[in-house]
Amino acid sequence: MKKNDNYRSGNERKIRLSDDLLWGIHPVYEALQQEAERISEIFVVKDRKGGKREEIIEKARAAGIKINFVTSLRLTGEDAYQVRHQGVVAKMSQTSLMPFNDLLDKFDRLVKEGANPRIIVLDTLQDPHNIGAIIRSAHASGMDGVLLTRERSAPLGGTAAKSAAGAMSHIDICQVTNLAQSLQALKEVGAWVFGAIKDDDAQSLYKSDLVLPVCIVVGSEGSGIRPLVRKQCDVLLSIPMEGQLDSLNSSVAAGVIMFEVLRQRQN
Amino acid sequence: MKKNDNYRSGNERKIRLSDDLLWGIHPVYEALQQEAERISEIFVVKDRKGGKREEIIEKARAAGIKINFVTSLRLTGEDAYQVRHQGVVAKMSQTSLMPFNDLLDKFDRLVKEGANPRIIVLDTLQDPHNIGAIIRSAHASGMDGVLLTRERSAPLGGTAAKSAAGAMSHIDICQVTNLAQSLQALKEVGAWVFGAIKDDDAQSLYKSDLVLPVCIVVGSEGSGIRPLVRKQCDVLLSIPMEGQLDSLNSSVAAGVIMFEVLRQRQN
Repeated sequence: MKKNDNYRSGNERKIRLSDDLLWGIHPVYEALQQEAERISEIFVVKDRKGGKREEIIEKARAAGIKINFVTSLRLTGEDAYQVRHQGVVAKMSQTSLMPFNDLLDKFDRLVKEGANPRIIVLDTLQDPHNIGAIIRSAHASGMDGVLLTRERSAPLGGTAAKSAAGAMSHIDICQVTNLAQSLQALKEVGAWVFGAIKDDDAQSLYKSDLVLPVCIVVGSEGSGIRPLVRKQCDVLLSIPMEGQLDSLNSSVAAGVIMFEVLRQRQN
Repeated sequence: MKKNDNYRSGNERKIRLSDDLLWGIHPVYEALQQEAERISEIFVVKDRKGGKREEIIEKARAAGIKINFVTSLRLTGEDAYQVRHQGVVAKMSQTSLMPFNDLLDKFDRLVKEGANPRIIVLDTLQDPHNIGAIIRSAHASGMDGVLLTRERSAPLGGTAAKSAAGAMSHIDICQVTNLAQSLQALKEVGAWVFGAIKDDDAQSLYKSDLVLPVCIVVGSEGSGIRPLVRKQCDVLLSIPMEGQLDSLNSSVAAGVIMFEVLRQRQN
């Protein structure tokens, strides 16, 4: 699991104090025990020993949580002077996330009921504004869940929650470490996986039959869907465009696709 | 034209030095002469007299440009100490805007050619991220122009330009002072004006025939389309939604509608 660790050597890390932080050895250890799915990443000061420090690192690794080892850690902001972080800080998402197996069970059940469930899948989206806006559109367009990568995704706290305008607590959100594997599992219970790409050779969104159990995968604006995830896609689809730039804000692209799914279902 | 003036009494105004600022009596006077359509607002220190100050205020009023009278004006940022602003600063949009009459002529010509032109109209949108994303989507979906209100819209500089990701120089953008009047003029040359609102009683987007010469009006997220502008709408339409929140980020809503226009035309 070494790949999950984000080593930055010789640096002091400053973190602004906010509602989505948790600090101290005992509180972080408890959170890892009780609600690991809400922790998006942890910061650990290197070379300190003792307490439950080693157990925290082990548990975080086992849960696929990103670990940042830093030489020193400084909290900033108004009340930061009151905080004794003991060398361990966790970033929590404000919303409680759904474990993947629960999302899988829900999808499976809806397929069996003939309800054609639909999930929007975000592959390493890094802009919290876009993640928030997509969660908001997902709720408004009646999606059954949002599946995100745990790594290289923006945290679901502050900015994303604000952009989601209250939708986070109205839709099931799930973060996973291995997205390709999760898509494989969803396919086994009946999902068709559609990957959104920018390519005139891909199937037109409007010529795609989306009245099926679907997972719609959207990638980051810079690099799109990663190869291993793309391999899991049954169909690659594209929004037909005019203009010379051939690109769209990723929250707009996701919105156009999710509402096309809804349009086809309402037809 | 008093309504255009933004009086803030007894305050010092700090403005961060940036590429979209122009300062000094002569440069601002020249810009008002030569390219008033690029000026989004001006700042004038009260009680100073002389130079072409009065003419600047008159010209800005005549052009419907927002005037901010301030007691003092301080530019901040790295090179600010070199700047002698002489009590007059103008905010310029980085893109050169199209005069409304040119946009009207273009629309008229396209109608006569049977080309069904389409314009996206933004009524007092205040979030520069959203304005930029909408301009980007407008270009990608092949709209013929973007019409914005001059007042109470976010400036078209920095943030909006960044969100537009290069699209600003690929689409005709026009700012007007009296949007209701401009829509009236567009209707006289054949436009159908569709106003996007959040209301289940409005006509469904998908049941609206959009293969016409159209203006699509989108309002701000908070307060929607203003009453006088709404009066100019031939049809009020709404995106059918599920979920309990019944709201969408305005750039996503605009994107869904503009791509539905494109879908109907490609059908």
